[in-house]
Amino acid sequence: MIKELKSFYESQQLDNDLISHFFKEADEISEDYEDNLLKGQILVTLFYEPSTRTRMSFESAMLKLGGNVISTENAKEFSSAIKGETIEDTIRVIENYVDCVVIRHHEEGMVKRAADIARIPVINAGDGRGQHPTQALLDLYTINSEMGRVKDLNISLVGDLANGRTVRSLCYLLAKYPNNKLTFVSPENLRMKEDIKEHLREHKVEFTEENDLNKVLSSSDVVYMTRIQKERMTPEEYQKSKGKYIINESNFNLLRRESRILHPLPRVDEIQLPLHIEKYDPRVAFFRQAENGLYIRMALLKHFMAD
Amino acid sequence: MIKELKSFYESQQLDNDLISHFFKEADEISEDYEDNLLKGQILVTLFYEPSTRTRMSFESAMLKLGGNVISTENAKEFSSAIKGETIEDTIRVIENYVDCVVIRHHEEGMVKRAADIARIPVINAGDGRGQHPTQALLDLYTINSEMGRVKDLNISLVGDLANGRTVRSLCYLLAKYPNNKLTFVSPENLRMKEDIKEHLREHKVEFTEENDLNKVLSSSDVVYMTRIQKERMTPEEYQKSKGKYIINESNFNLLRRESRILHPLPRVDEIQLPLHIEKYDPRVAFFRQAENGLYIRMALLKHFMAD
Amino acid sequence: MIKELKSFYESQQLDNDLISHFFKEADEISEDYEDNLLKGQILVTLFYEPSTRTRMSFESAMLKLGGNVISTENAKEFSSAIKGETIEDTIRVIENYVDCVVIRHHEEGMVKRAADIARIPVINAGDGRGQHPTQALLDLYTINSEMGRVKDLNISLVGDLANGRTVRSLCYLLAKYPNNKLTFVSPENLRMKEDIKEHLREHKVEFTEENDLNKVLSSSDVVYMTRIQKERMTPEEYQKSKGKYIINESNFNLLRRESRILHPLPRVDEIQLPLHIEKYDPRVAFFRQAENGLYIRMALLKHFMAD
Repeated sequence: MIKELKSFYESQQLDNDLISHFFKEADEISEDYEDNLLKGQILVTLFYEPSTRTRMSFESAMLKLGGNVISTENAKEFSSAIKGETIEDTIRVIENYVDCVVIRHHEEGMVKRAADIARIPVINAGDGRGQHPTQALLDLYTINSEMGRVKDLNISLVGDLANGRTVRSLCYLLAKYPNNKLTFVSPENLRMKEDIKEHLREHKVEFTEENDLNKVLSSSDVVYMTRIQKERMTPEEYQKSKGKYIINESNFNLLRRESRILHPLPRVDEIQLPLHIEKYDPRVAFFRQAENGLYIRMALLKHFMAD
Repeated sequence: MIKELKSFYESQQLDNDLISHFFKEADEISEDYEDNLLKGQILVTLFYEPSTRTRMSFESAMLKLGGNVISTENAKEFSSAIKGETIEDTIRVIENYVDCVVIRHHEEGMVKRAADIARIPVINAGDGRGQHPTQALLDLYTINSEMGRVKDLNISLVGDLANGRTVRSLCYLLAKYPNNKLTFVSPENLRMKEDIKEHLREHKVEFTEENDLNKVLSSSDVVYMTRIQKERMTPEEYQKSKGKYIINESNFNLLRRESRILHPLPRVDEIQLPLHIEKYDPRVAFFRQAENGLYIRMALLKHFMAD
Repeated sequence: MIKELKSFYESQQLDNDLISHFFKEADEISEDYEDNLLKGQILVTLFYEPSTRTRMSFESAMLKLGGNVISTENAKEFSSAIKGETIEDTIRVIENYVDCVVIRHHEEGMVKRAADIARIPVINAGDGRGQHPTQALLDLYTINSEMGRVKDLNISLVGDLANGRTVRSLCYLLAKYPNNKLTFVSPENLRMKEDIKEHLREHKVEFTEENDLNKVLSSSDVVYMTRIQKERMTPEEYQKSKGKYIINESNFNLLRRESRILHPLPRVDEIQLPLHIEKYDPRVAFFRQAENGLYIRMALLKHFMAD
């Protein structure tokens, strides 16, 4: 019997059995799926922050399973939030109309607040500097399908670790498997925060901090690149860190053939490779990672609405 | 034979038979409905002003009946209105693509203009300081299901009566039933407008005006709270009226057990009750009211597209 | 065997056989269509610029054929473009989730860039001052159904010819048929650009330039009016040209009974006719033109996703 989630707001909610269950489901879905499974059900995507891939992959996942979607591209300005409504009231109204809600919010903790009051499942699609647990799950799924395992790996997490909610969520998941070694590569001002480091120490996960990307490329099984999140820092901070970590033709071949580059996307300038490398070199895994997002989200929607 | 509406832009269009018809339909729909009734039909929601619950409840209503939806969250900036197109031209184009249009507009009277030229049904989801007739119908439906009747009631309408289109639309409906007594509780600068008072006098509906909310609570069967609509007044006006009418633990028990609080939502600070009261005290009716919105809108869409 | 398009980004891609094929398909679709043809497929509308009719007609076309839609009303601000993502990356992610993408973009050439990298069909719904080829195809289709032919016609193209992407796309199509004579009626500062004139010379299409609209009305078979595109010029330029070309009751009857006025819409002040003329005079063809947009887009979606 796997644990059943009521809502999904942070990656710590998952245990290893449930993760394996989602991996198995996503594998099967990538082959074939019941296109009528969620017929008659409605998913609402409530997005208070910009998104392309997350919103679209959730909406596509729902439509492919036969369900319907109500969409909010710009809830910050065009929902009742602008009139001063609390997230709790919003949820207590919306839950009368739909069967599941996916929320992206600019404020950390808001999705948990929504989940706490909701009668319907609430899924976190990113909350401020908090978490992005469905991204973490698809990242882990990608690591598993690319490397054949999610343990015994050297994983370098690179870029804006202070603001990157995807790396935060991913660290919780990687800590569940034995013998992973993490290297945090970031500018001094964008270091991984203490709460995550504390969690890793508690769970006896080895980690180091590093400034120089090139030093770690040859020893990494997985290099998880992230964007410097301009919109979450001052212009001065951005100037200090932008363009600091780049993978291009000059350092790409420091990576071993069996290593993989992941990126939650969007990227700005942190990966600059010729098209033929991006298309044909197996080390470039981030578009397969985006594709995996669809299967993982289909598995999640199935869990919340059909299982 | 009930009257058949071509479009629905103001609550005066309804007569008592039609209201009873919609109540009966909504009752039935709340139990069960044909999920294929509007298959192949398309509803467009054309929203020139922010909304969560109205847009979503219409879209949910359409999807649950098996129809499809095309949505416009921010028509003010992202439709051809910004290029100077008239509402008439917009409608004459859109009616080629869809079967029904729901419009929210920032300008009073625009939805009527749309309805006048349209070949397809046009439904008013709020026009400036004008009306919000589907809200009024669901409000009346909620009063009926909570109180067992829509006549012989003391009804206090509280808050921003000058700008509140929902209370305006509701007054027209309450005036159709015998022996309702209305009390308008508002700051001096946000009094109910003369056109509505004139209508009530013509129809021999007793009404009074009051400044003090606590004075009326014990004698009210229904207290209809509304939000002070900051976005429709000057900052000075808002300072004068904000926070003036609040129901919280200190005055909530002035209400009799069989009385009900309604609110069209969103609320800001005008109802502040502990969660256990909001969840379990029957006097808190506004989330049931939101739920009723779905059934009434399903009944309306059925009337316009299937009957 | 007709040519098969992979994507559709400029009207030059069409040859006469393919145009005839789309005309025949649109004719048939206007009578009846298979409402299950694209079941299980997903179209995404990715709009970086405002639109009503184009987005809605594509979405309606997809829904009527049984497909699903994911919609983006304001991709400029609310997609990952704002975080600095390239159009190529956006497409390489989205193509994992959907079966076809319709793009409107503020920058000329961006849709071609998207089409060049995409594995799925990409349709141009307007790119900056570039092209709007599906509009051109429906314009030509309208000319054909109104006039019975697309050759041997005197066609006046009126208004903002410098910024009007629909007239640009239409010129390429008109040049494919014998003995069409084009008259470009525009202010000096908004003349048709040299690339189109060069194309017409190469294809031996007769054209002249004219300042005075009234001079050409009586000799025109088709008058294609366009809006002065305020948003694509300086305020000074706009002052010089606005209100310069107007059809109203005073000059409307210069048109012969068998002539037709087309307009891609939205219009601002360039056509000002009484409602009864707009409704009943056969010379007013622009709302039929909008309707034709639906059939042509259904034919296009069928070509890209079902044929």
